[in-house]
Amino acid sequence: MRDDPQLGADYLQDRINAEITLARHIGVVVERAGDFELVLSAPLDRNDNHKGTAFGGSLFSLAVLTGWAWVTRYLVAAHIDADAVIQESSIRYLTPVRGPLRASLVPPAAEQVQKFARMLRRAGRGRICLEVVIGQGRTVAAEFDGTFAAIPR
Amino acid sequence: MRDDPQLGADYLQDRINAEITLARHIGVVVERAGDFELVLSAPLDRNDNHKGTAFGGSLFSLAVLTGWAWVTRYLVAAHIDADAVIQESSIRYLTPVRGPLRASLVPPAAEQVQKFARMLRRAGRGRICLEVVIGQGRTVAAEFDGTFAAIPR
Repeated sequence: MRDDPQLGADYLQDRINAEITLARHIGVVVERAGDFELVLSAPLDRNDNHKGTAFGGSLFSLAVLTGWAWVTRYLVAAHIDADAVIQESSIRYLTPVRGPLRASLVPPAAEQVQKFARMLRRAGRGRICLEVVIGQGRTVAAEFDGTFAAIPR
Repeated sequence: MRDDPQLGADYLQDRINAEITLARHIGVVVERAGDFELVLSAPLDRNDNHKGTAFGGSLFSLAVLTGWAWVTRYLVAAHIDADAVIQESSIRYLTPVRGPLRASLVPPAAEQVQKFARMLRRAGRGRICLEVVIGQGRTVAAEFDGTFAAIPR
């Protein structure tokens, strides 16, 4: 997948806003969307709890949308008419988030992406595991792993 | 913990609304809150995607609030001044949810609750693993497991 300017932050922002009702309430912002960087953020004040830290459900939602955005972008770039869906995932909360929520995709290894591409070519569907990190300044506040599937429309 | 009417659905609804900003947008409703039944729901139209099914982040949020509600209720009933926080969790999405979102706690085993109570007595803090099931009619649409901690205020 080339770094297609047509499939940048604005494209993913529009898709998320149009397709996921709750994303507008979370205030999801696609900060960066390139082949090697995919970052989503959200303001704390829409996602806080009474202790002034981020709600775990909001952090999870932002992380799952980050993985969803990668798969969605990949499918569009590859001209594959399929939807990205989450199948299973886990998240570990390491330290409370006390400022803006910020989720960054850990770019998948080339072999993983090639395997995903092979499954899509052969079967029209495929699965890929993606890792997303929630940061707080320079420390990792939460770690997310998700298995995403591409399902033909 | 006795089935205290003071710690029923209205009590938990007030706590959730007061403490978790996003819960109001999700439209979380505490349907039932007893010692052997804890059920939270939310309307689909606030939590849908463009395919008319529930967003995975909304299902996760409802499940995590169900576990949080159990721990919160337990702590208040036991007069322990601590907050319930999620430490880690996993969720498996088995089939899309096409109607109202509905999460039910799987009541923890008595030994698990006793162990949690012992930890709280000895150390003022403790951890417990809780299971929550998202239903769709009579089938299980998603399974959630979470480790919740009670942290002294």
